Amino acid sequence: MIRHEDIGRAVRGAEYAVRGPIVARAQELERQGRKIIYCNIGNPQSLGQRPITWVRQVLALAEYPALLERAPAGLFPADAVEAARRVLAGSQHGLGAYTESKGLRFVREAVAAFIRGRDGIASDPDAIFLTDGASKGVQAVLRLLIADDHDGIMIPIPQYPLYSATITLYGGAQVPYHLVEASEWKLSREVLERALVAAKARGVRTRAICVINPGNPTGAVLDERNVEMVLDFARAHGLSILADEVYQANVWLPGDRFVSFASMLERHALRDVSLFSFHSVSKGYLGECGHRGGYLECRNVPADVMDEITKLQSISLCANSVGQVATYLLVKPPRPGEPSHALYEEERREVLEALRKKAEIVERGLNAVPGIHCNRVAGAMYAFPRVTLPPGVTDDAYCLALLEETGICVVPGSGFGQDPGTFHFRTTILPPMSEIEAVVKRLGEFHLAFTKRHGG
Amino acid sequence: MIRHEDIGRAVRGAEYAVRGPIVARAQELERQGRKIIYCNIGNPQSLGQRPITWVRQVLALAEYPALLERAPAGLFPADAVEAARRVLAGSQHGLGAYTESKGLRFVREAVAAFIRGRDGIASDPDAIFLTDGASKGVQAVLRLLIADDHDGIMIPIPQYPLYSATITLYGGAQVPYHLVEASEWKLSREVLERALVAAKARGVRTRAICVINPGNPTGAVLDERNVEMVLDFARAHGLSILADEVYQANVWLPGDRFVSFASMLERHALRDVSLFSFHSVSKGYLGECGHRGGYLECRNVPADVMDEITKLQSISLCANSVGQVATYLLVKPPRPGEPSHALYEEERREVLEALRKKAEIVERGLNAVPGIHCNRVAGAMYAFPRVTLPPGVTDDAYCLALLEETGICVVPGSGFGQDPGTFHFRTTILPPMSEIEAVVKRLGEFHLAFTKRHGG
Repeated sequence: MIRHEDIGRAVRGAEYAVRGPIVARAQELERQGRKIIYCNIGNPQSLGQRPITWVRQVLALAEYPALLERAPAGLFPADAVEAARRVLAGSQHGLGAYTESKGLRFVREAVAAFIRGRDGIASDPDAIFLTDGASKGVQAVLRLLIADDHDGIMIPIPQYPLYSATITLYGGAQVPYHLVEASEWKLSREVLERALVAAKARGVRTRAICVINPGNPTGAVLDERNVEMVLDFARAHGLSILADEVYQANVWLPGDRFVSFASMLERHALRDVSLFSFHSVSKGYLGECGHRGGYLECRNVPADVMDEITKLQSISLCANSVGQVATYLLVKPPRPGEPSHALYEEERREVLEALRKKAEIVERGLNAVPGIHCNRVAGAMYAFPRVTLPPGVTDDAYCLALLEETGICVVPGSGFGQDPGTFHFRTTILPPMSEIEAVVKRLGEFHLAFTKRHGG
Repeated sequence: MIRHEDIGRAVRGAEYAVRGPIVARAQELERQGRKIIYCNIGNPQSLGQRPITWVRQVLALAEYPALLERAPAGLFPADAVEAARRVLAGSQHGLGAYTESKGLRFVREAVAAFIRGRDGIASDPDAIFLTDGASKGVQAVLRLLIADDHDGIMIPIPQYPLYSATITLYGGAQVPYHLVEASEWKLSREVLERALVAAKARGVRTRAICVINPGNPTGAVLDERNVEMVLDFARAHGLSILADEVYQANVWLPGDRFVSFASMLERHALRDVSLFSFHSVSKGYLGECGHRGGYLECRNVPADVMDEITKLQSISLCANSVGQVATYLLVKPPRPGEPSHALYEEERREVLEALRKKAEIVERGLNAVPGIHCNRVAGAMYAFPRVTLPPGVTDDAYCLALLEETGICVVPGSGFGQDPGTFHFRTTILPPMSEIEAVVKRLGEFHLAFTKRHGG
């Protein structure tokens, strides 16, 4: 019989706090009848965000094409019907067949057109891979980059644990670089250089740098100069870049805007930096997490390297077809003048406005609590406040107590990484508008009671 | 910039012939305007098999629940509406939310009920994981079993290359055991024992044995005695079993029936053999390959080991929700008396009867060609005939010439493994009934011309 102690270190060592022990405890409490507010994971539709109507209309038609003939006039708008026909024509065999390993070509062409439209740069459908959410794209690229434990991957601290877990699983070396909390979690060239030197000193050859923009868990949004700095750093040291841009539609502050790595790479005509960019249907305003759709775009990546990604995809055949079509719908929304455009825009604005307000409510509410400091929630779906804790208390214990006493489930900073001696937690900004003020209030009350109880 | 030579051996060494170079050549020819008949992959809906209506009706309703209110009476049968309501209630948040890492609980409960009904044995929903197709389940289990290159996994020769590719990718050791072509590709205890001894001699500790039943690429169907033999062998040597049972509904010969490993394990009350069984929505009569749905059931697997599978699933969050629901629909078809039952049964019978006939046509047609010998196509969707080739010619060259001359795309035996000095190819039995006779005929004509031309 298989025994736990026979399982390799790489598997046992991988940790994924977003669904770790505190979440398991939350589920246990929920089974006992407690109401739990899940702020541990960016899962918008689980907290009441409604799907975009147009997306679901097209998916329903593509699943059951008989509706194209049999549905009475008016049940579906004409442009949803047209989009479904394009999907069925483009996929050739409908949603039930394996697709090309790289993903459906018409979807990859639409993704390339989306990137061209977003950034005003060229994009090659043959350098695009459709993946089961962005996670699987990240994992494919890390798989290429890590041959053994001498291969290092730079990851931000704090980071989204997909990165640390996958590097551990593949037997690579984490090369942490700390984001600067005192300057809104921006990246510092000096910190990057130091991290690289430290890695080299322990025999690690660093292969790539991962950047999450807008930041998870930090909520930071990088400006042009920060992106250019990373590109220059990568060029100087021969590193590949993994640009996790799944929150690109989630930028909250007026004056800020999303700056893609691809756009800055092309502006400076860098031809010697390999760039892998990721996007997803799970975030933004679609929030279609369950559909597991996303893409990976490669730039300055040799064809024989891309062929290896294709091969990795082919071993488990292809990304799920529905997620591929959801990606198509993400990058090709209804246009002005089309029947679905008005409702689509209304729903989009509603989701984004609600998130923008909640980002502000969470940030302001947390900063009003003595002992909690929260940077600007400038983007993404999370706040990552620093908490001052009584001596001997960790953020793990703090978050567990928060859960037990209030039913609010957040993830300790330890799951993302943090400067030694500092403590944080990550909370999403996703609870419904009707609850968010109360959640933040309860958090604050808990904090005061907890620190008082522990002599803080 | 990333270079091909920097990519690790494990990635570069992994091979997946079913989508390998011959298929790439076929796609190239197709782009040049040639008609290609893709017999390389078990992708039924790409060759005209139609989806089961009921499955697609429920998926459409679950994607766009407004149809439950707005669709006129008669557009959907009442039981499809009921099933969609169960899906929406069971998933709590619809298809757009991440599910539990293990998969939706109501689906896992339905899978357990399916196994109980199929085999008359107990099944635990907590030991069931929903996966993106069976492939991802197999990969998760192999990930647990392989710590380093001393860990060996027994795989049949010929085998489905998911196994060899994944073992290579994870840095494990393949421990091949040859199926006996002369006895309809059955397993031999003696061969298994010899394979184990040979592995030990080269320093490999064998951890598990993979069995594909019904066989891919062989088409063999194991009987009770063969399954019992494998269980006894695994017990005697402390091996885990991976039972790939995705073709369980594809048994063609009268008198044969599918025998699950779980049923034999329970009949003999074996409590010390860990069993991992896999099933999928891609094969059988659904043929829903694009939806990437499947499950993994564990027996005699300690809770702390299953927790590691949960963790692996959680790193990329969850299997796609639509594939999970498709799995629900696979295991919970309409019952007699319900409105959809008659059509469902008719469609099911039609698919299976067509496949049964085509299995027979392919087998008979190939055996009529001098120099081709084909075992019974007793199950699954493939024939794996042995071809007698002129000296110096390989099955790779043979299959490439077949493609160039006829447009028929099959996979050389080398992609699956074969006894040294023998040559084979794998063809699916999936071309439409209107074409299958012609395909087999052209194959035979090609064989005669090819061997004659090469002095055979």
